[in-house]
Amino acid sequence: MRDMQKQIKLINRPKGTPTKEDFKMVTAPIGEASEGEVLVRTVYISVDPYLRGRMNDTKSYIAPFELNEMISSGVIAQVVFSKSTLFKKGDVVLGALPWQEYSIANENTVRKIDHSRAPASAYLSVLGMTGLTAYFGLLDIGKPQQGETVVVSGAAGAVGSIVGQIAKIKGTRVVGIVGSDEKVKFLIDELGFDAAINYKTQNVAEALREACPNGIDVYYENVGGEIADAIFPLLNNFARIPVCGAISSYNNERPDLGPRVQGYLIKTSSLMQGFTIGNYSPRFGEGVSDLAGWLKEGKLKYEETVTEGFDRTIDAFLDLFIGKNLGKAIVKVSEIEK
Amino acid sequence: MRDMQKQIKLINRPKGTPTKEDFKMVTAPIGEASEGEVLVRTVYISVDPYLRGRMNDTKSYIAPFELNEMISSGVIAQVVFSKSTLFKKGDVVLGALPWQEYSIANENTVRKIDHSRAPASAYLSVLGMTGLTAYFGLLDIGKPQQGETVVVSGAAGAVGSIVGQIAKIKGTRVVGIVGSDEKVKFLIDELGFDAAINYKTQNVAEALREACPNGIDVYYENVGGEIADAIFPLLNNFARIPVCGAISSYNNERPDLGPRVQGYLIKTSSLMQGFTIGNYSPRFGEGVSDLAGWLKEGKLKYEETVTEGFDRTIDAFLDLFIGKNLGKAIVKVSEIEK
Repeated sequence: MRDMQKQIKLINRPKGTPTKEDFKMVTAPIGEASEGEVLVRTVYISVDPYLRGRMNDTKSYIAPFELNEMISSGVIAQVVFSKSTLFKKGDVVLGALPWQEYSIANENTVRKIDHSRAPASAYLSVLGMTGLTAYFGLLDIGKPQQGETVVVSGAAGAVGSIVGQIAKIKGTRVVGIVGSDEKVKFLIDELGFDAAINYKTQNVAEALREACPNGIDVYYENVGGEIADAIFPLLNNFARIPVCGAISSYNNERPDLGPRVQGYLIKTSSLMQGFTIGNYSPRFGEGVSDLAGWLKEGKLKYEETVTEGFDRTIDAFLDLFIGKNLGKAIVKVSEIEK
Repeated sequence: MRDMQKQIKLINRPKGTPTKEDFKMVTAPIGEASEGEVLVRTVYISVDPYLRGRMNDTKSYIAPFELNEMISSGVIAQVVFSKSTLFKKGDVVLGALPWQEYSIANENTVRKIDHSRAPASAYLSVLGMTGLTAYFGLLDIGKPQQGETVVVSGAAGAVGSIVGQIAKIKGTRVVGIVGSDEKVKFLIDELGFDAAINYKTQNVAEALREACPNGIDVYYENVGGEIADAIFPLLNNFARIPVCGAISSYNNERPDLGPRVQGYLIKTSSLMQGFTIGNYSPRFGEGVSDLAGWLKEGKLKYEETVTEGFDRTIDAFLDLFIGKNLGKAIVKVSEIEK
């Protein structure tokens, strides 16, 4: 086996939109596993919008990345060498691991996944963090009721595409907001959304009024900004807004100004609630079980945008902010070996 | 008894801050009660910020006032003549009644109050709509826990002053935001707040950081605008924001722009929820019972700013928007007769 590998480090805190210059690819030794550790080969790397927040040096729900250290995110990897009694060579595992070709992981920081039930990459999306984010945000905060209208922004993304499909399973009218006609078509033709809006070519406020003749009961927030602003005037009484993300503002250098929401919330007795998936960790089993069931029954489809090659990890991350991905964005670093 | 009385009508929909020219005092017959009705003499009129919203011709949780018709609000009145078996002459009643010196009310639209338990005017404040608004917004949405920090804006007002005192009863650190040094002194010396900030003379963001060394767990929103903006960066994880009012924006003619809140809600998993007191009507008994108990035990004080004379009703209403009132603003129209 090789001794050296590539790693990706954060070398500047991005100002506004991240650029390639904020990252550096370096070569470093792979190292050796000690007792209770496994050496794993990276198979898939998850690239996610929330990682942008960790590149700032500000207090948040999760610690910022250190400068001149590796980025880390959800990773699927395969055990190459085990000094743990919990894992054997060939096991496929999931963990929060650094962006490098191989990792040494403590046996308590990774868990084995059953890739006979679903493809391994699904554990980074529909059966993993983004699927659970869709599931708990929509069902626990959004509480969609049969016949209601659910709007989701970032609707062709890893979270949004699952949100919309769960909302359909729950018997609601589902409207998605996306940034291309291709995505509009995908939502309606492939995922069964009732309507979809291209915010780049349509007047969102007008299109929403047309697509939501009975108003909006649940708005699953992924993007923030002007798209969100257009939602508030259409809220029904007792509407619920799970606030999952605000990708439109992640690269802002100036204060993100928009209409204040208090008046809308009062008029309609509506609720907005931010959350992160970690809040729900005691209930992950329940979520995975429902998601896997719907997947098996064919009620849930998931899409992946796979970028091939470790060298293109940064490109895959930067593409998130120009909306290139359909469904979950992942980087394929190596093949799972039998 | 007199035949004629004065009435106050809305003759223009205010543009921005209401002025006297938006209202008109007219003289009209008092009329006679029919079967199932009572003739009542107005004793106290409640003037409230929310009435401003009803002067606009826009959809909200409560219908707008009609042009060239009387304003109505919470009124305490005394029965002068009864053609109802439910009421007798001398009974003191509470109802949503028009701004006039006498009213004819259907027996089902008013209810008798026990003014031996508390002064009649208290049924417009601490034991009435504003007390219940404080109670349910704080306890049902804010859910203050012992040792947490609760901030309330409009803290010397009818709602805010009760919110702060209930928060103290619940064992929290309570910080009020008000618009004069007299009110700061009132909150600390009379109501037992831990700290108070004068937003007109202090930098609210700095003063909040100092007054809330452990961050903010509950923000009871009465004012909106820049004061609210200063709260969001100080929210603790899982903070709760009952959104009761946004008086700073009620007279705005332009869009009310401020920093979008989504990022703050996500970072802290915080909740913002608008409400109106009508949502809680099935639970009013529970609220009145607790409030009356605390009042009796001396744990709750309430202040009133009483304007004397029906002719000054409009002045009392307009004074709300320049923060003249301490506690509940009411107009005393007549005396309760034994």
